[in-house]
Amino acid sequence: MSQHFDAVDVIAAKRDGRELSTAETNYVIAAYTRGKIGDEQFAALNMAIYLNGMTRREIVDWTNAMIDSGTRMTYGGLSKVTTDKHSTGGVGDKLSLPLGSLVASFGVAVPMLSGRGLGHTGGTLDKLEAIPGFTVDIDSTRMMQVLDEVGVIIAAAGADLAPADKRIYALRDITATVDCVPLIASSIMSKKIAAGADSLVFDVKVGTGAFMKNLDQARELGRTMVDLGNDAGVTTRALITDMNTPLGLKIGNALEIEETLDVLAGGGPADVVELTCRFAREMLEMAGVADADVEAALKDGRAMDTWRAMVKAQGGDPDAPLPKATDTHEVVAEKDGVISQLDALALGVGSWRLGAGRAKKGDPVQAGAGIEIHAPLGTKVRAGQKILTLHTDTPERFEHALEAITPGITISEDAPERVLVHDRIA
Amino acid sequence: MSQHFDAVDVIAAKRDGRELSTAETNYVIAAYTRGKIGDEQFAALNMAIYLNGMTRREIVDWTNAMIDSGTRMTYGGLSKVTTDKHSTGGVGDKLSLPLGSLVASFGVAVPMLSGRGLGHTGGTLDKLEAIPGFTVDIDSTRMMQVLDEVGVIIAAAGADLAPADKRIYALRDITATVDCVPLIASSIMSKKIAAGADSLVFDVKVGTGAFMKNLDQARELGRTMVDLGNDAGVTTRALITDMNTPLGLKIGNALEIEETLDVLAGGGPADVVELTCRFAREMLEMAGVADADVEAALKDGRAMDTWRAMVKAQGGDPDAPLPKATDTHEVVAEKDGVISQLDALALGVGSWRLGAGRAKKGDPVQAGAGIEIHAPLGTKVRAGQKILTLHTDTPERFEHALEAITPGITISEDAPERVLVHDRIA
Repeated sequence: MSQHFDAVDVIAAKRDGRELSTAETNYVIAAYTRGKIGDEQFAALNMAIYLNGMTRREIVDWTNAMIDSGTRMTYGGLSKVTTDKHSTGGVGDKLSLPLGSLVASFGVAVPMLSGRGLGHTGGTLDKLEAIPGFTVDIDSTRMMQVLDEVGVIIAAAGADLAPADKRIYALRDITATVDCVPLIASSIMSKKIAAGADSLVFDVKVGTGAFMKNLDQARELGRTMVDLGNDAGVTTRALITDMNTPLGLKIGNALEIEETLDVLAGGGPADVVELTCRFAREMLEMAGVADADVEAALKDGRAMDTWRAMVKAQGGDPDAPLPKATDTHEVVAEKDGVISQLDALALGVGSWRLGAGRAKKGDPVQAGAGIEIHAPLGTKVRAGQKILTLHTDTPERFEHALEAITPGITISEDAPERVLVHDRIA
Repeated sequence: MSQHFDAVDVIAAKRDGRELSTAETNYVIAAYTRGKIGDEQFAALNMAIYLNGMTRREIVDWTNAMIDSGTRMTYGGLSKVTTDKHSTGGVGDKLSLPLGSLVASFGVAVPMLSGRGLGHTGGTLDKLEAIPGFTVDIDSTRMMQVLDEVGVIIAAAGADLAPADKRIYALRDITATVDCVPLIASSIMSKKIAAGADSLVFDVKVGTGAFMKNLDQARELGRTMVDLGNDAGVTTRALITDMNTPLGLKIGNALEIEETLDVLAGGGPADVVELTCRFAREMLEMAGVADADVEAALKDGRAMDTWRAMVKAQGGDPDAPLPKATDTHEVVAEKDGVISQLDALALGVGSWRLGAGRAKKGDPVQAGAGIEIHAPLGTKVRAGQKILTLHTDTPERFEHALEAITPGITISEDAPERVLVHDRIA
């Protein structure tokens, strides 16, 4: 295969704005995965793609080639329909946690294969590992067993799921080719299609704390992923949701587990509950469960029962107290007024600096670090009133965290209206 | 210095079409030379430059940063004015050989630091090495001595002459970022300015056998290099010359030395003589020698005397017979008519395949391999009349060479007029 193509010719084609053939795409992805094309060549190709774009067919080819670099999971032995959800990442975005259990409580299987957090957005696996005993390393036999018995599992994606994507993503990260819709869409979709669920819903976050800073870009990404999924035979939808301010009132690993338990107990912040129910209805509808009363399943404890069963099945103790950080610091209002800005990026970076996130792959995270929000967007406050509580095990970090957080808080006459869901793409 | 910049930020800036600051340029070139920025990052940056271009100031900065990566030569100890010539490369382009000696015969010093051939255009150093005993490895002390006594030297550029360019060029070669005017101009100019001559003339070739395929691109390259040179305090001019058909009647290493000797003996093909004289006048004028009768210096043996002195000074024997290839093959006219096309690229690739050039750095070349042209563009021929003689030590290569050569020969009713010099940029 490799003797028919030359890497330089393929780079030159994309550089000159020509469409890559399916065979050319298969060649470059396979050759790069096998080390036959160097990082410097693939980096040049990525930059040419970043600047010249890809046609829909090229994105489909690119995605398929990355899926073919590894194995594609199947749930043929399972008697349930499967569905999955993926978020492009946000601050305080713990939706997957209550959502998986809520959907599974209706008899649908939710195999969630997730990654770890990097940068200012938290990772689902890091949050779950705040639960004493919880493990995210589950082999496929055990995974099928848990899906059969409990209905939901949230585990680390195996190394054989789109391995080409892992290598390409690491390269994009150091060559300024990350925020490119065709490359983002194919990266996410290769992993999600390979993960094998029957249907998929995407939460495409838009706003300061999200990867996508504007609505047009978010819609383009959502549309691209929905098309890719449907083309690959996976029923796919996307919601475009707000990430200008954090989701819910808690940011951090154990802190977000606490809020998840609030939601599963029938309470919790209105925005988290609303989006959890909205996504659950989308997933259940795609799985063939019409008109599910998801609010009831949160209120009557069915979702909580499923959660507890999942935690136990993954080695965790649902009754163990959650880790707490050793030190706290309060941020108070400087004047009277309304919280008109509580910036998602500022609080995301702040929480990261407090120890909730990692600077580089493999770094440890603090289970208890993070931020509690006492006065969310739109709250009327008095000077001196508590707005945030910062948590960390390393109090020397408060100052650095506050440098990020303080400019993200604005108090003025009144607050802008928050639109939670901007669009739905199906 | 390096702590103030981040490679990813600089790549992103160029990717987004922003102008790089002088400090950013200095940082990336220095950091790449020292191995602090990886090949994959520099490859992404090169592709962003390829697609988004560079402003004039950025090209100046880029060139200066590459010069500063090594040493800049000076000829302060020499009592002569210095001048140099550089060609962007063509087929049968031996102009530097007679030209250096011709100009030096007027008392001007010509320090030519050259490279080896790669691909279908021959290298000046490879041609000179066809002369028994000739060496191109000359240290700077000896170089000054030869310039003082003989006036001309043609030697290999030292490793400390714009070392950043060497690394960047090798990277561009495998990442489809070679044919980009800002990168070509800064690559050539960094080496030429660092080489330290008082004035420079460029032969920007345009046509099928040249790097620049169209006149606009050639003019842009010429203008960019002339501006860069003059900005750096080096009087610089450029001529844009034809490379749709080979220059002269001989292509190959020893074959081009033969033709050089013809020209230095007052004979030789008209196109080679015309361009040699034209470039000599430009160089002499810049060096302060007005109205030089360069034709006379070719006719009366002054240029030949200088050549013989240079060959001796560089260890060669000017009277030794030149190497001959072991095998020859004649290409004859298929029909009566006029040679209306004798394509430079076809003959360049043919000569390369016969063994005159190398496929990769470090490969040996055959001294005797190449092509003799008996019927140049515009010649009236009869069917069966000899057009070319191919020379090689490896006759099994004739077939592969002919595959390139044959489609490059057209015989028809009449030939197009050849314009030898398209433009002059000063």
